[in-house]
Amino acid sequence: MPLSGFTILDLSRVISGPFCTMLLADMGAEVIKLETLPDGDPIRGQGAMREGLSYYFATFNRNKKSITLNLKEAEGRKLFEKLVLRSDVVVDNFRPGVLDRLGLGRERLRQLRPGLICASISGFGESGPYRDRPAFDFIAQAMSGFMSMNGRETDPPLRSGLPVSDLIAGLYAALGITAALLRRERTGHGDIVSTTLTNGLISFLSYAASHYFATGEVLPRSGNDHPITAPYGLFNTSDGAIAIAPAGDEFFTRLMRALDMTDVLNDPRFANGQDRVKHREILNARVAERMSLYGNAYWIEKLNGAGVPCGPVYSVEEVFSDPQFADMAIEVPHPDRAPVRMLGFPLRFSEAQCRIRLPSPRLGEHNEEIYGSLGISRDEIEALRLRKVL
Amino acid sequence: MPLSGFTILDLSRVISGPFCTMLLADMGAEVIKLETLPDGDPIRGQGAMREGLSYYFATFNRNKKSITLNLKEAEGRKLFEKLVLRSDVVVDNFRPGVLDRLGLGRERLRQLRPGLICASISGFGESGPYRDRPAFDFIAQAMSGFMSMNGRETDPPLRSGLPVSDLIAGLYAALGITAALLRRERTGHGDIVSTTLTNGLISFLSYAASHYFATGEVLPRSGNDHPITAPYGLFNTSDGAIAIAPAGDEFFTRLMRALDMTDVLNDPRFANGQDRVKHREILNARVAERMSLYGNAYWIEKLNGAGVPCGPVYSVEEVFSDPQFADMAIEVPHPDRAPVRMLGFPLRFSEAQCRIRLPSPRLGEHNEEIYGSLGISRDEIEALRLRKVL
Repeated sequence: MPLSGFTILDLSRVISGPFCTMLLADMGAEVIKLETLPDGDPIRGQGAMREGLSYYFATFNRNKKSITLNLKEAEGRKLFEKLVLRSDVVVDNFRPGVLDRLGLGRERLRQLRPGLICASISGFGESGPYRDRPAFDFIAQAMSGFMSMNGRETDPPLRSGLPVSDLIAGLYAALGITAALLRRERTGHGDIVSTTLTNGLISFLSYAASHYFATGEVLPRSGNDHPITAPYGLFNTSDGAIAIAPAGDEFFTRLMRALDMTDVLNDPRFANGQDRVKHREILNARVAERMSLYGNAYWIEKLNGAGVPCGPVYSVEEVFSDPQFADMAIEVPHPDRAPVRMLGFPLRFSEAQCRIRLPSPRLGEHNEEIYGSLGISRDEIEALRLRKVL
Repeated sequence: MPLSGFTILDLSRVISGPFCTMLLADMGAEVIKLETLPDGDPIRGQGAMREGLSYYFATFNRNKKSITLNLKEAEGRKLFEKLVLRSDVVVDNFRPGVLDRLGLGRERLRQLRPGLICASISGFGESGPYRDRPAFDFIAQAMSGFMSMNGRETDPPLRSGLPVSDLIAGLYAALGITAALLRRERTGHGDIVSTTLTNGLISFLSYAASHYFATGEVLPRSGNDHPITAPYGLFNTSDGAIAIAPAGDEFFTRLMRALDMTDVLNDPRFANGQDRVKHREILNARVAERMSLYGNAYWIEKLNGAGVPCGPVYSVEEVFSDPQFADMAIEVPHPDRAPVRMLGFPLRFSEAQCRIRLPSPRLGEHNEEIYGSLGISRDEIEALRLRKVL
């Protein structure tokens, strides 16, 4: 596997960092999750639980090992340095300065272990006026401009229901770490990699940013309408709703034929893209009327057959009931309980396939294995635990 | 830089693939963009234009070289094979089967060039019932369940205004390619990497998926409300709106103190998280009343000072006016025109920094350089062009 043999010390918590290290673990890295007693990563207690296990935690922490460690104790920091000596990457999503205040700043760690890669995810980064502000997904969505582009023009800006800033930052960090490992493989040099919840989302402004840079104008939110294409959007059928996205003249012609609306093709009001956007309401009403005559299955078959991009709006349940997406839900064996269902692997390799090697760990489950590998005996581990170092 | 010295042949168009190869090019890869005459990548004509240049194209294709090549001609396919022999990665976002029908299937390319990495991004992947369907961002948002979680409970599902499925798939593909290059560096083996618009978004269902897997229940959309936290959301001030996200008792207490609403802390209706969600409307109304008394600047200073996560809802223009995000807009020199403003680098390295080496290319700008490196003379290039091979 691509990251087999690399060891990642993971100080991160909740979502963005754990998502990053899950991606690396799925590709073969040994991820050692450092947690603090009594509760460990707060996500262990978040989201829907089943028989005492948070399925949210179980997903984001599969393929990882857990050890406990108290960095507020000098002995704990000494142990951390020993762990660094046998690691390739240290990941955190603390606020900037936290590791420095513990005497474990990145420059110091890199002196200790030449070639080390340090990666961090924070709300706003290491510099700038908001460096020390707490940041959560919702705030990042608001400040990045993402919310300003989400929602209908006549409604207030809307957050995405899913924690996009955390997940995008986690993906960027995984990319940066892998790239830094590749560079280290070729040059021997480590690096410091960082990304932020806000910058990740800003990079997603894409066409909205380039429109602003080119014209100085800000595009409005447009709900389910496309700013420069019509018809486009969500249409109710007799038993559901489907999304239609016929961008360009060719797709438009195909759609009109499939809907038996060929009269529209000779109507000057709908002659080109601009005309169709101008008369969007009339056109959408005509399409809506036709679509209401039959059900989802009929239209999806018919429109896809005619080469018109379309699809149903699935609920989460429907996603995981569709054979197309069957392998995006996997069952992971857990000791002493029924297998846990969770999200699969969106990234596929034909040779070096992602796979599950370990279920999510119990808090401190790998203390003996990992501290043992540092030469610490079972008795010493117990003594460290009593002194609240682990 | 992490990807210096690697050559990527880029057959991809529009957004998902070009975003992937932009990320790799920003990290140092030589990306050779293959385009077809007369128009090249359709995105050259999309989005806001300024003095004949699409700023959307310019952003997604910085740091790349462009050559023209017609794969429908046998001579063009021969040239493609020669290019493969000097490349490390081939990227496409064609529908499955297109390259096979041209006789340029991935297995054949990998025989030709051992160690080659082939990467593809498609709507639904290489198998399953929807393999051959056209897919666009909107359809992927609908079918992945993403739309079902975006919007208010009482409104229809809403797409994200930004092309999240394209961008997330591009990020996954960049991660997969970099991981495969790392593995090749260590083992000599190439690989086939793939991801899809739909699976990338499904992987973002995160807590909504784990909730469903744990309970069998589907969470409703919740607009700007948080399903298990209140107060939370967007509140109007006297001159704008700000997002507040005080998750947990500690942040709630801080918020109530900062708002001079300490009476709420002794009110049994708001004693714990569940109570506050239950009485969300009363609580939100009280918060809204207080917030309306002062402007954005006052509250952001006050609440951040009190350690409450909060921030303004920025328009795209406001994002790029805030000093915190100054380096997320960069100016790229282009020959014969004013510098082009575009999005910066969300991923930072302290040693191997991302940087601009080339502006986006004119169509076929690098024909002489690249075909010249295959030993093809200027006259032969001209002859190939006349025969419509380039």
